[in-house]
Amino acid sequence: MTSAESVADVGLLSPVQAGSAVEELTGDAAYLRAMLDAEVALTRAQATLGLAPGSAADAVAAAAGPPGRFDARDLALRSRSGGNPVIPLVTDLRAAVRERDPEAAAYVHRGATSQDVLDTATMLVASRALEPVLDDLVRVGVALGRLAAEHRDTAMPGRTLTQHAVPTTFGLKAAGWRALVLDAHDRVAAARSALPAQLGGAAGTLAAFAEAADGPSPAEDGPDPGVRLLAAYAAGLGLAEPALPWHVLRTPVADLGGALAFAAGALGKLAADVLVLSRTEIGEVSEGGGGESSAMPHKANPARATLIAGAARRVPALAAILYGSLVAEDERPAGAWHAEWQTLRDALRAVGGAAATAADLAEGLRVHPGRMRDNLDATHGLITTERLASAYAPLVGRAEAREAVTRAGERAVREGTGLYASLLAEPVLAEPVLTGLLPGERLRALVDPTGYPGSAGPLVDRALDRRPGGPPPA
Amino acid sequence: MTSAESVADVGLLSPVQAGSAVEELTGDAAYLRAMLDAEVALTRAQATLGLAPGSAADAVAAAAGPPGRFDARDLALRSRSGGNPVIPLVTDLRAAVRERDPEAAAYVHRGATSQDVLDTATMLVASRALEPVLDDLVRVGVALGRLAAEHRDTAMPGRTLTQHAVPTTFGLKAAGWRALVLDAHDRVAAARSALPAQLGGAAGTLAAFAEAADGPSPAEDGPDPGVRLLAAYAAGLGLAEPALPWHVLRTPVADLGGALAFAAGALGKLAADVLVLSRTEIGEVSEGGGGESSAMPHKANPARATLIAGAARRVPALAAILYGSLVAEDERPAGAWHAEWQTLRDALRAVGGAAATAADLAEGLRVHPGRMRDNLDATHGLITTERLASAYAPLVGRAEAREAVTRAGERAVREGTGLYASLLAEPVLAEPVLTGLLPGERLRALVDPTGYPGSAGPLVDRALDRRPGGPPPA
Amino acid sequence: MTSAESVADVGLLSPVQAGSAVEELTGDAAYLRAMLDAEVALTRAQATLGLAPGSAADAVAAAAGPPGRFDARDLALRSRSGGNPVIPLVTDLRAAVRERDPEAAAYVHRGATSQDVLDTATMLVASRALEPVLDDLVRVGVALGRLAAEHRDTAMPGRTLTQHAVPTTFGLKAAGWRALVLDAHDRVAAARSALPAQLGGAAGTLAAFAEAADGPSPAEDGPDPGVRLLAAYAAGLGLAEPALPWHVLRTPVADLGGALAFAAGALGKLAADVLVLSRTEIGEVSEGGGGESSAMPHKANPARATLIAGAARRVPALAAILYGSLVAEDERPAGAWHAEWQTLRDALRAVGGAAATAADLAEGLRVHPGRMRDNLDATHGLITTERLASAYAPLVGRAEAREAVTRAGERAVREGTGLYASLLAEPVLAEPVLTGLLPGERLRALVDPTGYPGSAGPLVDRALDRRPGGPPPA
Amino acid sequence: MTSAESVADVGLLSPVQAGSAVEELTGDAAYLRAMLDAEVALTRAQATLGLAPGSAADAVAAAAGPPGRFDARDLALRSRSGGNPVIPLVTDLRAAVRERDPEAAAYVHRGATSQDVLDTATMLVASRALEPVLDDLVRVGVALGRLAAEHRDTAMPGRTLTQHAVPTTFGLKAAGWRALVLDAHDRVAAARSALPAQLGGAAGTLAAFAEAADGPSPAEDGPDPGVRLLAAYAAGLGLAEPALPWHVLRTPVADLGGALAFAAGALGKLAADVLVLSRTEIGEVSEGGGGESSAMPHKANPARATLIAGAARRVPALAAILYGSLVAEDERPAGAWHAEWQTLRDALRAVGGAAATAADLAEGLRVHPGRMRDNLDATHGLITTERLASAYAPLVGRAEAREAVTRAGERAVREGTGLYASLLAEPVLAEPVLTGLLPGERLRALVDPTGYPGSAGPLVDRALDRRPGGPPPA
Repeated sequence: MTSAESVADVGLLSPVQAGSAVEELTGDAAYLRAMLDAEVALTRAQATLGLAPGSAADAVAAAAGPPGRFDARDLALRSRSGGNPVIPLVTDLRAAVRERDPEAAAYVHRGATSQDVLDTATMLVASRALEPVLDDLVRVGVALGRLAAEHRDTAMPGRTLTQHAVPTTFGLKAAGWRALVLDAHDRVAAARSALPAQLGGAAGTLAAFAEAADGPSPAEDGPDPGVRLLAAYAAGLGLAEPALPWHVLRTPVADLGGALAFAAGALGKLAADVLVLSRTEIGEVSEGGGGESSAMPHKANPARATLIAGAARRVPALAAILYGSLVAEDERPAGAWHAEWQTLRDALRAVGGAAATAADLAEGLRVHPGRMRDNLDATHGLITTERLASAYAPLVGRAEAREAVTRAGERAVREGTGLYASLLAEPVLAEPVLTGLLPGERLRALVDPTGYPGSAGPLVDRALDRRPGGPPPA
Repeated sequence: MTSAESVADVGLLSPVQAGSAVEELTGDAAYLRAMLDAEVALTRAQATLGLAPGSAADAVAAAAGPPGRFDARDLALRSRSGGNPVIPLVTDLRAAVRERDPEAAAYVHRGATSQDVLDTATMLVASRALEPVLDDLVRVGVALGRLAAEHRDTAMPGRTLTQHAVPTTFGLKAAGWRALVLDAHDRVAAARSALPAQLGGAAGTLAAFAEAADGPSPAEDGPDPGVRLLAAYAAGLGLAEPALPWHVLRTPVADLGGALAFAAGALGKLAADVLVLSRTEIGEVSEGGGGESSAMPHKANPARATLIAGAARRVPALAAILYGSLVAEDERPAGAWHAEWQTLRDALRAVGGAAATAADLAEGLRVHPGRMRDNLDATHGLITTERLASAYAPLVGRAEAREAVTRAGERAVREGTGLYASLLAEPVLAEPVLTGLLPGERLRALVDPTGYPGSAGPLVDRALDRRPGGPPPA
Repeated sequence: MTSAESVADVGLLSPVQAGSAVEELTGDAAYLRAMLDAEVALTRAQATLGLAPGSAADAVAAAAGPPGRFDARDLALRSRSGGNPVIPLVTDLRAAVRERDPEAAAYVHRGATSQDVLDTATMLVASRALEPVLDDLVRVGVALGRLAAEHRDTAMPGRTLTQHAVPTTFGLKAAGWRALVLDAHDRVAAARSALPAQLGGAAGTLAAFAEAADGPSPAEDGPDPGVRLLAAYAAGLGLAEPALPWHVLRTPVADLGGALAFAAGALGKLAADVLVLSRTEIGEVSEGGGGESSAMPHKANPARATLIAGAARRVPALAAILYGSLVAEDERPAGAWHAEWQTLRDALRAVGGAAATAADLAEGLRVHPGRMRDNLDATHGLITTERLASAYAPLVGRAEAREAVTRAGERAVREGTGLYASLLAEPVLAEPVLTGLLPGERLRALVDPTGYPGSAGPLVDRALDRRPGGPPPA
Repeated sequence: MTSAESVADVGLLSPVQAGSAVEELTGDAAYLRAMLDAEVALTRAQATLGLAPGSAADAVAAAAGPPGRFDARDLALRSRSGGNPVIPLVTDLRAAVRERDPEAAAYVHRGATSQDVLDTATMLVASRALEPVLDDLVRVGVALGRLAAEHRDTAMPGRTLTQHAVPTTFGLKAAGWRALVLDAHDRVAAARSALPAQLGGAAGTLAAFAEAADGPSPAEDGPDPGVRLLAAYAAGLGLAEPALPWHVLRTPVADLGGALAFAAGALGKLAADVLVLSRTEIGEVSEGGGGESSAMPHKANPARATLIAGAARRVPALAAILYGSLVAEDERPAGAWHAEWQTLRDALRAVGGAAATAADLAEGLRVHPGRMRDNLDATHGLITTERLASAYAPLVGRAEAREAVTRAGERAVREGTGLYASLLAEPVLAEPVLTGLLPGERLRALVDPTGYPGSAGPLVDRALDRRPGGPPPA
């Protein structure tokens, strides 16, 4: 028989999440705690409605209470015959209750099915785990907002398809990262706030609960006793009350999957840009306290961005599994449900770890405007050619302007002269300058790469009007 | 040079969508039309703001107008060198405008980048294509609502892990399908209503537009001219105005991907259940006008459910690609953007085809209550054992009740006697009956599989309170 | 600081693999062991080539030896700053070596990079974990082979698109499962046998090793010292020698991913069929010692097939992540590599668990030929209509035969008469019988569903010629 | 009714494949052709075995022959009711045969099921489409081999986690690309050579063929007539003979999926590196005839690498769908099979387009050794610190060496002095030089970044020993 230690995953292959709050909130111990919380809430709700004695609820709560009474590894091993860990847990819980209060044992798990407990536990775990994740996403948003404001007008090369295109600003870049992270926050928060309790009984009809309620004579025309129990149970857990038992209506899990894949992608975009801008040859940003290398003393690796990027590659596929599990046949599917468990946990951990890592990254990011300025000059002014071609077009014709500017740019690169001089060396481009149609002073401004921010500033301003957690700007 | 005919995909491998509205609304011709719409709107918006003559906008509109002027296959072939089809399209459009109005040619695509046009076209296509998809989802919801109401109390076996569990009703099953389809409708509708226009220029700063606006003296303290243009352009297209250019902030595409994966899964759940219930041995539902077979005259295949199930297997993976494309480096990524195009179209087509097929399926579905009743009896009453064990538990003890009921059930199956007789043959179970603790009449009711619906009826009622397009019930 | 216990995954959400050999062979402890094995082998190989003293290799081996000296959780937490667990492990190992033999400490990890050790460890773990997986696949193959032989001629309904089509045999079905499982075995075995050691140094040039070798004067024209070291290191580990360091040439990992996805699918096919055939209404097979239910005493769930089906839904997406990591930029990618670790482990565990579960399933599967026979009759002979239509076609015309047989089948179902009588009630079909063109005796044989096995028997025979681990039959 | 033109995909969203050979070989017309080829081969095989008159085979071949007789769009529309396009095609083909030879009509599709024809057609299409793909992979391999040989000793920065690590050579880089592309070639070639014909009849038992063979009295103890037909049919098509009908044993499709995902990843690795090395700030390679931009006259985008990268992001998810379809219930699954069709075509097109594009890329790639040399110097010698620390370690202690070298490196960057001078400014590092333990000449060599290739040269040599299509080097 294998021991817990010998099989355990304690994070050795998961640096992105090691030590994060979400890691602990999604461990097997946390799931076990949440399953017990669900069992306690179920008996408590029945007691509230007069379907069980209050003492039974107390006994279940007391028996479930002490941490460590139930052994996750042992439950895992015993879960194989029935296919889920709730079956052995109920056995153990019932025995523990029986020890305290033999009468109460009959009320343990009464009327419920394993899926009620495991689904509810999963929702509790998700709700608890996503709280620090949302906090971390806010932290990322705040830090990026500060960077965007501070660098509202810091010019840098805009890059498309890896090549310098026209200038942009670091402020606009940071504002974009922030907008995406706030989008992620909104999606995760929306999914979290909708997380419902699960209760349906053997086939989702709440039949055993209705049966139990038959005794104490339910009001003929009052609300259905099963439905009342569902409401009481959800309220006791602080989860949403579902319209229907959702054993095979997996909206909550699919929505979580989508929100997590979005969040992973949003953080992955930030990481991808940090990785590009950190490149040795580019050097426009660097991580504070960058990663050590086992072989090279001089290297400061963008370790945080790397770990985030690694997580971002995984979550979309995990979400695909969860979306696939919407296709759940019958009143409980044979496989689709089981495929969700580890997958969702894995996605929570990857995103939670990435969010915590991104908060550190964003708060510690060092920006190097000098390198941005140097890089703007790296193409000897070619980064301004769009603008130059536009300015010349009405004066010499669009095609001619385009060709002559390109020629001048090539000459500037080839001969190492500035672009200004090179433009004047093209007769067709010199003429408007000489004839005053395009005064030299204006031409000098046109070749200045920092003088072409477009609407970057106003765009940053309006992007920053959006508050983390608030609506996107209209 | 290959011809359009020789390479075309005209639906031979895609029966699920062949002939559907969405298929036509997402063809290359529809994309081409939408790209031209974007170009026209761009010049029109510039004219509105005084950045271009009205005549230029008219000329662009006229040149773009006649269907068939631009050849999708030719553009496809010429798209390779620049990597997207907008580049050759702009060349052709400019030439066509020049023929009518040489002055106007300079205003074609002015200040824009290819991605502005392709992203906007994609949003237009999605918006147009999702209109019939939403209609079809409503059709499905209405048809399922009718089935749920009609069969509110039609008992059938609840099945978990492929086995009869306890009874449920077909009404609850249909209400569940409907709830999931309405969830899908809500998600697709929300994604559709947020679809934004795209406009950012070469690196997302709107710089060339701001430049153009310099001429006609923009108000010093008025709104930024780039931002004003963005608003006018979006309004002209009937798309949402984005807070920021979103060349590398792919929220709209990722959200579409998630909504489509959800919709595919929701329809896939319906299909999965229809497939199970249609099985020869089960026969509880059948498709109206079922699918012909090429080999067997007697077969009526559930062809619609099959096609939906096929589509449902594909879309989650497509959504994973789209979520992955959130990780888009720089101001335009080299690959992530390009991976979206065909993927999103494919997802739209699969979901659109599945929705149209599901509408036919739901509207034509034939329900066979007689087979449901027969199947309830297939286990000789074993489907009522949960209930029986519960009823006996307070009288003979929980464990004893469970064991004796199981024994009685096995005997009923083995000896072919009814479960009632078999229960009475177990001394421990007979005693409460004989002593009047469990009157025989009550026991007869307990073994009636149609008498154990639980809260199915009330659950159906409250699920049907939700209107298609309305909020889920509180 | 979170404890190992509080974050650990010990299998609570993974019944499919709980207690399996592969679970233990892929735990963090096993990875840690394999990393230490790689470090020991590296120093040993250098000693073998005279690049390090033999005493250094002994000291490293001794320091690495005692299980439990290194703490996986502590390493996980310290892995964040550098982004992988090898960096802190090397620190600890070096310290432990220094305690024994200060001189030897310099030879720990000398010339290597973290990826050399982690990749090698991953290959060792995969090699060790796949050994029982292959054994289990053979077990599955053997058990299925026995079933195929035993039921070579057991007729059952062939089902297509959920409907009875024409008869098949359980033997052919089992032979098909077996063929697919043997295909999986071949693919996993091939991937396992190719698993290479990893050694490249900081950027894959083996430069630091070559440098180290400069001292003891390498033979000018002998093999390159780096290449020699690579060979010695691989040999010492029992892994294949790669042609090139494969830090960013991820063939081994991608191939593993593909083989594991294949194996999951192959086992998933078996599970899918068992689930169908186990359905209450079908009942043609059942799992030995089927799964208990927490709510219903009578249910015997196909728990093994369910767990396998759950695993099969996950692995293709995991393989997609691994294939995606082939796109690994530079000499070490920032993210693609990191995305592999947990993903590959997860895939190994899912497939390993599924294989072990499938072995139990196949060895314990109970086959119910009586139910198969009953189900063949469920359509009142309609399952023979393909055959009947063929037989009548030359006598009455193809279209006429098809239509009349269909009519007769419908009548047989409607009136509950046998199909034979019903055929004779169709004048066009009766005539050939009456006129002796189709003797009644022959017609009786044609409506016997067990008399239409086609080539099922010979196909089983030739499929069974293939030995597990041997080549597919020519 | 929508027209073919209005729904067609003719490549507008797929520049990567537009105009490629694979595009045409996988169009609907090519699939239709292959379906007809399968029908012809089926009748021909039956004629060969004496089960049909030779004239029937001639009539089918003649009727199937003229291109354009059958209308793919019309078949697509009519495919919905039965769920696949073979059903209406058989109707049309039978009618066309009947016109020529009424007797022959009965032999059209005789004994077969739709899946026999569609699966066989898919294999024919894959086989035909992969021929140019393999050729293109060889072209890539040859071009990369040339680059590797030519630049065997061209030093460039090795980059790990985006940072300069130690030097490598462009030859080693190109040799690595080539090795991965040859791995892809091997996997695609292996999958292609195993592509089998499909023939099983209604439920995979070949029953209708065996029935047909009953007439002409099959040899009692000869090979089974169904099996003989299978062999003849496969031989006639030039496809492999399967051991079993594989309607639900999807090895060929899953293997294709894996091989294609591998190939996409291998080409994606090449593209990812080209994209990095093409960056404006890096500039070590450029595409010949780089991509035009619609907005910026000066830009030369790495358009080919971009298109390949886009394709590489899609195929792993497509492969996941195909692996998922291994889970195919019954004798024909309701959905899993249908999910394969468009998915496999899409994967073939993406990989085929990427391979053709990569061949152009590799053959036209321009390498800039001067920029490589400049970039090596960009870190003022820091790229040699691993080596320096190693060299100093035995002289001054490992930790001290590492720290002092790091300090010297920082000083070199800060003060702009060379690294050599900066090392001598560190007393602890100067001493070995002054005392002759580390002669100045040797130190100068150590700081030369081009003097540290490690085993790059020999590794290139042995990698180039592998021939395209040959085995990997031992």
